[in-house]
Amino acid sequence: MAKLDNVLDRIDANQDGALRRLFSLLEIRSISADPAFKDECLKAAQWLQRELSELGFAASIRPTAGHPMVVAHAKAKRRDVPHVLFYGHYDVQPADPLDLWESDPFAPRLVDAQNGRQIVARGAADDKGQLMTFVEACRAFIETGELPCDITILFEGEEECGSPSLPAFLAENKKDLVADLAMLCDTNMWNASTPMITTMLRGLALEEVIIKGAARDLHSGLFGGAAINPIHVLSKIIADLRDAQGRITLPGFYDGVEELPEEIRDQWRALGLDERSFMGDLGLAVPAGEQCRSVLEMIWSRPTCDVNGIIGGYTGAGSKTVLPAQASAKFSFRLVGKQDPEAVLNSFRVFVRERLPSDCRAEFIRHGASPALTLPFASEALSRARRALQQEWGTEPVLGGSGGSIPIVGDFKRSLGMDALMIGFGLDDDKIHSPNEKYELNSFKKGTRSWARVLAALSA
Amino acid sequence: MAKLDNVLDRIDANQDGALRRLFSLLEIRSISADPAFKDECLKAAQWLQRELSELGFAASIRPTAGHPMVVAHAKAKRRDVPHVLFYGHYDVQPADPLDLWESDPFAPRLVDAQNGRQIVARGAADDKGQLMTFVEACRAFIETGELPCDITILFEGEEECGSPSLPAFLAENKKDLVADLAMLCDTNMWNASTPMITTMLRGLALEEVIIKGAARDLHSGLFGGAAINPIHVLSKIIADLRDAQGRITLPGFYDGVEELPEEIRDQWRALGLDERSFMGDLGLAVPAGEQCRSVLEMIWSRPTCDVNGIIGGYTGAGSKTVLPAQASAKFSFRLVGKQDPEAVLNSFRVFVRERLPSDCRAEFIRHGASPALTLPFASEALSRARRALQQEWGTEPVLGGSGGSIPIVGDFKRSLGMDALMIGFGLDDDKIHSPNEKYELNSFKKGTRSWARVLAALSA
Repeated sequence: MAKLDNVLDRIDANQDGALRRLFSLLEIRSISADPAFKDECLKAAQWLQRELSELGFAASIRPTAGHPMVVAHAKAKRRDVPHVLFYGHYDVQPADPLDLWESDPFAPRLVDAQNGRQIVARGAADDKGQLMTFVEACRAFIETGELPCDITILFEGEEECGSPSLPAFLAENKKDLVADLAMLCDTNMWNASTPMITTMLRGLALEEVIIKGAARDLHSGLFGGAAINPIHVLSKIIADLRDAQGRITLPGFYDGVEELPEEIRDQWRALGLDERSFMGDLGLAVPAGEQCRSVLEMIWSRPTCDVNGIIGGYTGAGSKTVLPAQASAKFSFRLVGKQDPEAVLNSFRVFVRERLPSDCRAEFIRHGASPALTLPFASEALSRARRALQQEWGTEPVLGGSGGSIPIVGDFKRSLGMDALMIGFGLDDDKIHSPNEKYELNSFKKGTRSWARVLAALSA
Repeated sequence: MAKLDNVLDRIDANQDGALRRLFSLLEIRSISADPAFKDECLKAAQWLQRELSELGFAASIRPTAGHPMVVAHAKAKRRDVPHVLFYGHYDVQPADPLDLWESDPFAPRLVDAQNGRQIVARGAADDKGQLMTFVEACRAFIETGELPCDITILFEGEEECGSPSLPAFLAENKKDLVADLAMLCDTNMWNASTPMITTMLRGLALEEVIIKGAARDLHSGLFGGAAINPIHVLSKIIADLRDAQGRITLPGFYDGVEELPEEIRDQWRALGLDERSFMGDLGLAVPAGEQCRSVLEMIWSRPTCDVNGIIGGYTGAGSKTVLPAQASAKFSFRLVGKQDPEAVLNSFRVFVRERLPSDCRAEFIRHGASPALTLPFASEALSRARRALQQEWGTEPVLGGSGGSIPIVGDFKRSLGMDALMIGFGLDDDKIHSPNEKYELNSFKKGTRSWARVLAALSA
């Protein structure tokens, strides 16, 4: 591995230049949500295209209905190496409220903080700092010899406004983008000294239910007692969905939910998450999910059923003696493992209908359904990435999950059939989307070295 | 009872004049809700004051912060007769939408309908036609000799906008208004040939509950499963409030709820209410209350617990993956018999608190509490009124209930300590508050005769 040592040395030697390059990207006000910054978005795309071209990538700017994509290709000299697709985004969140920033959000600077130096700027962590760790790793390989893998890079400019152009772009440029494995850097470490590979993203199934009773709102004095109240019916359904142990009672709900491998469970336990402090940050104290599950299981590896909204009857000030004609609620199911969103929603509809009094009917509105995305624990790429990160950080990376979804990962899976290796070096306190966003200088430097090790490990 | 026959004959002979008088009252546009009709309200009060004065009452107009009251007194020549307070209201609902009226709402007319002649005008039934039945009965007594009772009359002009001035007026004029018994005419018959005395008004206790969980709304992906969802907690409470037989599970809730006397239950059963048709009018088929209770019991003599409104989380279009920090619901309890509103609400608060997970807290907002009002079945006045109505209509009057409250009855009870005899000759199809309001000519005529019989019976 003399060659990798050269690459890592080069990364260290390049440090000043790497920061200079990152700063010039951070200076571009590529706020995708605000049309006033359209030219700045293009400027960021052009900056990346030029940067990658200078490194020897075949890089192009690809227009979309919104902000352009940057697509770049570079091949290893060796044949039979893996082909990876790296994804990042060059757009950033709006910087306001500006008066809460301690300095100009687009004048990046290094700040000395208690735990080391920080790069402070809008986009420092989300996602310019993170994506540049990968670009700088590529630079070090190229400057010291050759890339270890065939590499395709895709940078988008609309992530912060919901990636409206991305699904169609993936579908239309399948041949140009497909690779053996996708890599994303939009995620966090477990903590400042412990890297994390996000291997599980929960899926999501969304369904709204409207329970209808009488033909019109009724006077609750004149008809109360005789007329069915849809709020009661809906409440009973919601109450029935969960047993006293916090398990979801929907028939078949846990089909496809697998227990964690012993190894992962041990790892999560060993992390020693302070559950009281975690819950305390939310203004809570007691994990509310299934009994005998840890908080990490509850939010990473276990499915949920939540009501995200409910409304019925009179909801203004004071009181109104009304028996409402209808009540509705928005349900969401977070899914894990091999749970089938369609099966879950079908079971839900049956569950609701079985609980309808003869005088009520239910209407359903589907708001979306996507399965969980899991990188198999047995995956060879995952094993190699784990070892590589262990070598860089001196500690075993956490194989974590994310309770929320990352739509792009689903898009890669659906459009390109690719699994994604999610490795990022952000920290929970990076203040992304908030004033004074920062990225640890250590994340930037060791992140770059981490990518070098991961790419080398994948092609070994 | 030769004297009563004279009175009844006089009522029949007065018929044309009685209608003429009613029509001139109906022509006055005494819409209390609209300030533009303030003078018309005063005009109606003046009309009544003049009418009563001409009959020999000591009648005066009494200003309030809103529309004035009319108070009138007349004594029987005999001593030791009962003293009754008769209440009615001279104000009417707005007449719009005007284009749905078949004729000018303030140009009263007689219309030939399938079941007899009808008086069509705004206020024909609610309440000018009804209150004039009592005034015309007094006229017939006076014109044929003397009043059978001491009579105080109170006409208000703000009933259709919530009687804002009434409670204070009663409190401030207690000595001037207090009598042995209050009489109200704002109610309906069972049907066109069966009179009804409303002896039970359900009480009402209103309480809003806000369940609070996390310190802020949370992302349901990142925290779903671990963080408590107040919508679930609230739904469970609502579901727990009712058992499978439709009974309310609140401890002590049925304290003070008495079973109907056998006689009344038999009477209600004999009415042969078509429950399918009653429910069908609401777009429903199955009575939803306690099993083994009739619909009449459910709405007249049994207490209820209803949620009149519920809200929590995201309730706009589409979906939002939020775990709300709070959810709230407005509860109402309809009370009967001797149920104590305070005891019910206290039990409710305990019930809610017992079901709160340690991470939730509840806030309560009291929106009002008033007990049920019941005229005891054993009351002597009730027995006499029953016989009087039976004689006029040839059929036993229904001793009915009203599921809704009539606030004035509570005010009489609280301020003046008086029970109320509620007898009215309206029909369910009178379209009060709606276009083409009508009052059956038969109700007007036999209603007047009924009051004559009731007054005579009370003083016999």
